[in-house]
Amino acid sequence: MSHKTSIRLGLAGYGNLGRGLERAVAANPDLELKVILTKRDPTTIKSPYGTPADRFGNAANWRGQLDVVVLCGGSATDLPEQGPVLASLFNTVDSFDNHGKIPDYFAEIDRVARENRHLSLISCGWDPGLFSLSRVLFSSILPQGLDYTFWGKGISQGHSDALRRIPGVVDARQYTIPLEEALAIARSDLGRPLSPREKHRRECFVVAEPDADLAAIEEAIVNMPGYFADYDTRVHFISQSELHEKHNRLPHGGFVIRNAKTSENTGQVMEFSLKLDSNPEFTASVLAAYARAVFRMAQKGHVGAISVFDIPCGELSRFSPEELRRDFL
Amino acid sequence: MSHKTSIRLGLAGYGNLGRGLERAVAANPDLELKVILTKRDPTTIKSPYGTPADRFGNAANWRGQLDVVVLCGGSATDLPEQGPVLASLFNTVDSFDNHGKIPDYFAEIDRVARENRHLSLISCGWDPGLFSLSRVLFSSILPQGLDYTFWGKGISQGHSDALRRIPGVVDARQYTIPLEEALAIARSDLGRPLSPREKHRRECFVVAEPDADLAAIEEAIVNMPGYFADYDTRVHFISQSELHEKHNRLPHGGFVIRNAKTSENTGQVMEFSLKLDSNPEFTASVLAAYARAVFRMAQKGHVGAISVFDIPCGELSRFSPEELRRDFL
Repeated sequence: MSHKTSIRLGLAGYGNLGRGLERAVAANPDLELKVILTKRDPTTIKSPYGTPADRFGNAANWRGQLDVVVLCGGSATDLPEQGPVLASLFNTVDSFDNHGKIPDYFAEIDRVARENRHLSLISCGWDPGLFSLSRVLFSSILPQGLDYTFWGKGISQGHSDALRRIPGVVDARQYTIPLEEALAIARSDLGRPLSPREKHRRECFVVAEPDADLAAIEEAIVNMPGYFADYDTRVHFISQSELHEKHNRLPHGGFVIRNAKTSENTGQVMEFSLKLDSNPEFTASVLAAYARAVFRMAQKGHVGAISVFDIPCGELSRFSPEELRRDFL
Repeated sequence: MSHKTSIRLGLAGYGNLGRGLERAVAANPDLELKVILTKRDPTTIKSPYGTPADRFGNAANWRGQLDVVVLCGGSATDLPEQGPVLASLFNTVDSFDNHGKIPDYFAEIDRVARENRHLSLISCGWDPGLFSLSRVLFSSILPQGLDYTFWGKGISQGHSDALRRIPGVVDARQYTIPLEEALAIARSDLGRPLSPREKHRRECFVVAEPDADLAAIEEAIVNMPGYFADYDTRVHFISQSELHEKHNRLPHGGFVIRNAKTSENTGQVMEFSLKLDSNPEFTASVLAAYARAVFRMAQKGHVGAISVFDIPCGELSRFSPEELRRDFL
């Protein structure tokens, strides 16, 4: 495919998600990654695909050379700072996932993007993202019913970080595990609201300092409010080498289930699920497809901030509307 | 909710799907069913909701009084005839499911709808419809992988009709049943293309004439090309009363699975599934939500024929974009 018909992407932030995006772009013949924008020294970036790196501060130099920039930084500090800057320069896609702050973030990105005639998709990925899409689709079709979202089995970064902040803990990983009994209830005639403890359990693999008080660490974990206190939590103390060997990947996944009735004794269950060996590689694959949609919608004149709810599914595909109707409908 | 803000629907065809649509409209506070258009004598239509009925031939009298008309007839004869007529008079939604003829049907509806400044959604439901949407979404996100569509466990109308055409058969129901072993392969690292026989088996419940040659009927069934010959098929002869008692519902469902790799040894599985106690009530629920989207998109100036691939998910919901971002993202 010639460069003329490629969609020219940039990415900002070269961690797990950024490296996943580089892979995802390589899997899509109509996408091309032109530059990695980084806050680090660009000479330290070693791309296996030979993608050039440039300082984030030089982003404005790339105006006119990038169709869409995909933000691959974190929601805590990177995106609130980089989102508005990049939306002023380019069409953008990000994975902002701080749920409580989405309305404010949307408003700011919308203002900046509109002022500069750009299109910016916020909060893309799988949750928020594909799971959000499923929740809207399912509840629109079956207005009278119960919604369930389950996460896992997978590594929760936030919970792993919480473990590492406990005194005496050197390193740790936390798996969120949906309970089979709860999934069975969610899918059955017996559908009813489920408590956090009924839906998930948490499993922690912890590397402690040699002289640490293991009982005290375990107490601190299982009683930690907001993270572990509301769940059945199991703690396993293991060595750093075992942690590296057996828990060095970032698997994840989950389930969105709608359990509804359309008439008496007539149950209808809709379900969307993911089983992911690599959370960042999958999230990056979602961002790549949505970057294509943002490019196309921007070409059609859309501006401002949008969410996954605003994008027709066909815009995600590299196939034409005629091909989609013929081969996929 | 006042009549002013309701979306005024008509439906054409009052079989299982039409009755399901009437129920679905009742479950949505912003939708209102104004008329049932029928080819039968309207005085024979007894709506449990008191919806008035009118002759299909009087459809033009309802111009200006209906925002969207939902076609609830069959794809074999009703829709090719009624689709263009109604698309000339109203915005429409239909469930045209003759896959091979979709491009031609789309072209004709598109022409008529554009001439009359209407918007017409074709081939909506769950397959074609939600399953099509899943196939496009999944393959856009994971371009390198395998796609699987499984149907059932559920009653196939087409296969049940084929059974009833066999001499000596009085009545019959056919269940399409996805095989657990095949589902397990589709979801696993061992994902590979699967033959029809590997994916589904077919179970037939047959009421025969009193003096019929049962062995001959069974032979005719299991060797029927295009319907049963490529599958493991089981035939059960039962009485008419048992058929009515145990097989009088129209359950269905299925699975769309994408099994892909984003890098070596990194598998990613996406899955959408349905488990439906009533196929027509669920399909009608899908049509009702999409009728809302067609109304809104028509108000925004869209005209012509569209498919589910052209509709942003948010248009299906009765909630505002702000509410969706706050509560569902």
